[in-house]
Amino acid sequence: MSRSEQFASDNYSGICPQAWGAMAEANRMDEPAYGEDQWTTRAADGLRELFDTDCEVFFVFNGTAANSLALASMGQSFHSVICHELAHIETDECGGPEYASNGAKLLLGTGADGKLTPQSIEHLVTKRTDIHYPKPRAVSLTQATEVGTVYTPEELRAIRSVADQYRLNVHMDGARFANAVAALDVHPSEITWKAGVDVLCFSGTKNGLAMGEAVIFFNRDLAEDFEWRCKQAGQLASKMRYISAPWCGLLKDNVWLDNARHANACAEQLEQGLARSPGVSLRYPRQVNGVFADLPEPLQAFLRNKGWRFYNFIGGCSRLMCSWSTSTEQVDRFLADIDHWNRNHRG
Amino acid sequence: MSRSEQFASDNYSGICPQAWGAMAEANRMDEPAYGEDQWTTRAADGLRELFDTDCEVFFVFNGTAANSLALASMGQSFHSVICHELAHIETDECGGPEYASNGAKLLLGTGADGKLTPQSIEHLVTKRTDIHYPKPRAVSLTQATEVGTVYTPEELRAIRSVADQYRLNVHMDGARFANAVAALDVHPSEITWKAGVDVLCFSGTKNGLAMGEAVIFFNRDLAEDFEWRCKQAGQLASKMRYISAPWCGLLKDNVWLDNARHANACAEQLEQGLARSPGVSLRYPRQVNGVFADLPEPLQAFLRNKGWRFYNFIGGCSRLMCSWSTSTEQVDRFLADIDHWNRNHRG
Amino acid sequence: MSRSEQFASDNYSGICPQAWGAMAEANRMDEPAYGEDQWTTRAADGLRELFDTDCEVFFVFNGTAANSLALASMGQSFHSVICHELAHIETDECGGPEYASNGAKLLLGTGADGKLTPQSIEHLVTKRTDIHYPKPRAVSLTQATEVGTVYTPEELRAIRSVADQYRLNVHMDGARFANAVAALDVHPSEITWKAGVDVLCFSGTKNGLAMGEAVIFFNRDLAEDFEWRCKQAGQLASKMRYISAPWCGLLKDNVWLDNARHANACAEQLEQGLARSPGVSLRYPRQVNGVFADLPEPLQAFLRNKGWRFYNFIGGCSRLMCSWSTSTEQVDRFLADIDHWNRNHRG
Amino acid sequence: MSRSEQFASDNYSGICPQAWGAMAEANRMDEPAYGEDQWTTRAADGLRELFDTDCEVFFVFNGTAANSLALASMGQSFHSVICHELAHIETDECGGPEYASNGAKLLLGTGADGKLTPQSIEHLVTKRTDIHYPKPRAVSLTQATEVGTVYTPEELRAIRSVADQYRLNVHMDGARFANAVAALDVHPSEITWKAGVDVLCFSGTKNGLAMGEAVIFFNRDLAEDFEWRCKQAGQLASKMRYISAPWCGLLKDNVWLDNARHANACAEQLEQGLARSPGVSLRYPRQVNGVFADLPEPLQAFLRNKGWRFYNFIGGCSRLMCSWSTSTEQVDRFLADIDHWNRNHRG
Repeated sequence: MSRSEQFASDNYSGICPQAWGAMAEANRMDEPAYGEDQWTTRAADGLRELFDTDCEVFFVFNGTAANSLALASMGQSFHSVICHELAHIETDECGGPEYASNGAKLLLGTGADGKLTPQSIEHLVTKRTDIHYPKPRAVSLTQATEVGTVYTPEELRAIRSVADQYRLNVHMDGARFANAVAALDVHPSEITWKAGVDVLCFSGTKNGLAMGEAVIFFNRDLAEDFEWRCKQAGQLASKMRYISAPWCGLLKDNVWLDNARHANACAEQLEQGLARSPGVSLRYPRQVNGVFADLPEPLQAFLRNKGWRFYNFIGGCSRLMCSWSTSTEQVDRFLADIDHWNRNHRG
Repeated sequence: MSRSEQFASDNYSGICPQAWGAMAEANRMDEPAYGEDQWTTRAADGLRELFDTDCEVFFVFNGTAANSLALASMGQSFHSVICHELAHIETDECGGPEYASNGAKLLLGTGADGKLTPQSIEHLVTKRTDIHYPKPRAVSLTQATEVGTVYTPEELRAIRSVADQYRLNVHMDGARFANAVAALDVHPSEITWKAGVDVLCFSGTKNGLAMGEAVIFFNRDLAEDFEWRCKQAGQLASKMRYISAPWCGLLKDNVWLDNARHANACAEQLEQGLARSPGVSLRYPRQVNGVFADLPEPLQAFLRNKGWRFYNFIGGCSRLMCSWSTSTEQVDRFLADIDHWNRNHRG
Repeated sequence: MSRSEQFASDNYSGICPQAWGAMAEANRMDEPAYGEDQWTTRAADGLRELFDTDCEVFFVFNGTAANSLALASMGQSFHSVICHELAHIETDECGGPEYASNGAKLLLGTGADGKLTPQSIEHLVTKRTDIHYPKPRAVSLTQATEVGTVYTPEELRAIRSVADQYRLNVHMDGARFANAVAALDVHPSEITWKAGVDVLCFSGTKNGLAMGEAVIFFNRDLAEDFEWRCKQAGQLASKMRYISAPWCGLLKDNVWLDNARHANACAEQLEQGLARSPGVSLRYPRQVNGVFADLPEPLQAFLRNKGWRFYNFIGGCSRLMCSWSTSTEQVDRFLADIDHWNRNHRG
Repeated sequence: MSRSEQFASDNYSGICPQAWGAMAEANRMDEPAYGEDQWTTRAADGLRELFDTDCEVFFVFNGTAANSLALASMGQSFHSVICHELAHIETDECGGPEYASNGAKLLLGTGADGKLTPQSIEHLVTKRTDIHYPKPRAVSLTQATEVGTVYTPEELRAIRSVADQYRLNVHMDGARFANAVAALDVHPSEITWKAGVDVLCFSGTKNGLAMGEAVIFFNRDLAEDFEWRCKQAGQLASKMRYISAPWCGLLKDNVWLDNARHANACAEQLEQGLARSPGVSLRYPRQVNGVFADLPEPLQAFLRNKGWRFYNFIGGCSRLMCSWSTSTEQVDRFLADIDHWNRNHRG
């Protein structure tokens, strides 16, 4: 990979070498279509092994689809899904979940650092129980969250407990699930089925694939006929091996975890550098691969002028994302530019 | 590519070298997401140049999505789409168009060799005009058809004429559009916008990509806000360059056309061999990359036993598909096996 | 009611006196909304008593909604519903079931006299089992059928047996259920839950109400949260008593059955008169309140010119419908006009 | 009507005498179905005359349907609708608009006294313009609002001005439109098409009908094929005259306006009485037929114990609704009970 000057998004990064290698291998001959190939079997089995349970695994193209279809399988159009007000499914899916479910509403909960609390869930379930309001049937959690924080196993179990009380299914948006596993240093099962998660959408794209997410049903009843749902929704790849073979590349020798650890480490390096910078403050605790920092506007302008790309999040704080392809040199260059500005431009 | 023993589907084939090369090139550095990269711009411009018109171009993941979303943009849930009774959107999309449109019905027309006739369209439009029946707003044509035949420019213009009379939009399912262009030996514009096609779904997957279809709006009014539709439906790739760069590979030096010509030529070779085989008859005229032949059941069993894979179509005839990766040696081996059977197993 | 000159439809008729009386009674004072009134409780209890089982009962506005929502509760968007090719849900609901289910396809079966056969159902379930085709989850039967015939209890049980084999739910479109009960002279339970019907849409409109259908779930599991479905779909009446009180009027002293018997008797009188008329032939066996007869075109013109209204059905045969408000004098006048024409206009 | 002890809802009231009379008249003979009767023509013409413009008029069963289908006709599934956070379509339709539109999100705006401000609309339109967020295409206003206030013609024109700037359609939820006209004492055109309203859902139910709302398109382009939409959605009444004839009863001699004035006057009487009551305060300015008052909890309990029914609104304030059937005696009795409590139960 060439030199990169961006912390804009972990989906600006390319395909990691191991995924590329597996794809090249899968390209050596013709293979059956629609997932009847050897790679898809192998990738699904690999995920079952990773999670150490007999879950149902489906591969779809992207995260919007993974989350929307998983949520649709958890309820009906007249049900609702409880999520944090900052959840990606609410703020950045252009109504994808509402579309796939034919009208289910998202009920917006709250909690510090982007994490939904059991209290907030309970409040949303109990404040209305009449038929004029959609009945909650699912809770959606993002792990890691949109602001780079993680739910601990204990927090997840507390949420499961409320979910049990009110017959709610638990969905996990795992756009950065790998980064959460790396940060928490737990076995993947500890923050999924052992903590009561029914369905996980495990993102490969942000972890080093071209595209392709695994929808993993730990609650196998919810997976009934899910392959038909994927097909109808335009999410069944004919040449599915080009999604599943790269997944094999990620799973072999835990490349997925190395990729996540690397991205987290780059973010930590960035965080530590920023912490030393006068006038810069962190908005949220940095736990995974993103740093959310309030940068003075002149500094932002200076950095952008130097060619750095990054987005500003709600409330104006800058979101700096690292990925498997971020280099420590890149972080150093960025911090050096900030130092330079601090020396020259600040009184 | 290794030796292959299948005529099962053109989507059993892999990624062609030129598409692979472009993908490798696109993987050299980080790039902006969601289509804001250089490759997507280049691929869309390349298609505009190819069709010699200022059309709107969108890339989606697969054919189900391309067709379903294109049709949804042509009408409302209470409208209907006229298609041939053998059309893929009717027989093999698991209700994808009905889902994307939230309920539009497909009205099934007829015509010899899988081709919808103007008369059949007119009959379906005029037989019911009351509000208890969904109002036709679109015609969907498959070019080449599901049975390997092609609409001539004249036939398309005759259909456009009926469409104009009844205010119908014209959609073209181009799963094998490249093969149709190759077979007809016309400029792509002649069988699309110059013949009154409003929207074409041009398949890259069957032509040599891992995945990725271009939805091309010649009628630009119908494209209004289509990018939002793609996003909501889970059809906006974050790392879109991995769809668009391979398209660049196909477009450069007309690789797409060479791929199609090669596949058509293999099918012609197959057709000619089968024509010489006693007891074998062709069900439909062979015009593109598939041969539809009635093979005696013992012959089918013999071939399958030798390792050949192919599917039987409605009515029991065998569908033998060639692709860019089919080799003339493979066709020779297949025909030799048939000869062998003819010599030894037929009285 | 004034003199009427129509056999166009049983929904051209008005509100029968007993329903009107109940509505007047319900209008004497304010009442709670959304079904929390005394009338709705009474009507639902009355239906449970009538069917002699503890079913779940919901009232909706019309038949399109009753059928569409009942079918939506039986499957998902990627499932399919098997029905006769003449079924109202296919031919006259403008895609209502596809809309309410967000895309479920109807698979069209066959059978003489508008009645689906077990063989036809089995054929549709078994001909495709791949994920490219929507999976059948329900059978929809119309009792009485669109061509005025009835399923016997034995026929229904044979269909239930196939349904059990393939895990299909059984829906009954009872637009003219009352007429079927009257014709078969059975207890309502014999052709519903005792014959394996999961959900019945029992029409009040055609039986003498202004509007209002009862959706009756004998399979109570399928009724889960159905009240939310009704609400979301715009089928929860705020002043629900104006639907339920008239139902009380129909249920008291079996007015519904008298109305149906009367309509059937008028149709029988019509049938017998037509049977004596030269040049007129019956298309289907007359079993309930409609006669399907091939009338010579000049006779049709003569009758219409005399002011009679009736519709022609597919294939050009005339559909002559009787209702609770049809009078024997009206039938006599119609037959007299035919006699007159026969005497004067036929060679 | 009998004595009533409720201020729970204006839909607890029955059918007003003039609507009943028209319904009785409509019941005297058979009539064509699906709106081809004389009453439906007359009611639609009556509304055109009332609004003094050539609008398109459709009758549907209830308010959920009227609003949901009207909004669906204003945009696509990937668009959004801006409404006040207290809007009925957000808080009490169980996802009806999301369902009818197949996924359009509601964006929640703000403003004092339940009224959306132009600033709030502009903020919601401009804060996000990327494809990850649904594009606003409509503004929905409730006239009178959910808290009993009204938009003045000037306020409506200011909103239209923002709507024009951003290409938004303007929808008016007229559940209590009649009460707003009565309160503002303007010609109905002044707060609809002359102020830039594209579609009005004019409620008959709350004004004195059993059921039935008029969806009135002043912007006739938006009405294209709306009758098919109604049919598919289960909103086409077969015996439509039982909706339209009562509307004729309301329109003749401006009964609708008298009903609204009466309800407003009762609410005013209630408001004035409450204003004199110690410990009671009004939450919102009383402008139409509802009073929103903070009643001490012991007083609420006392009143409920005396048999009075009323609901508490968000924030715990009591909502006291009057209708055409509320009597001044009823208001007097209620106020007398409050006086009694004040004398005996307050220190």
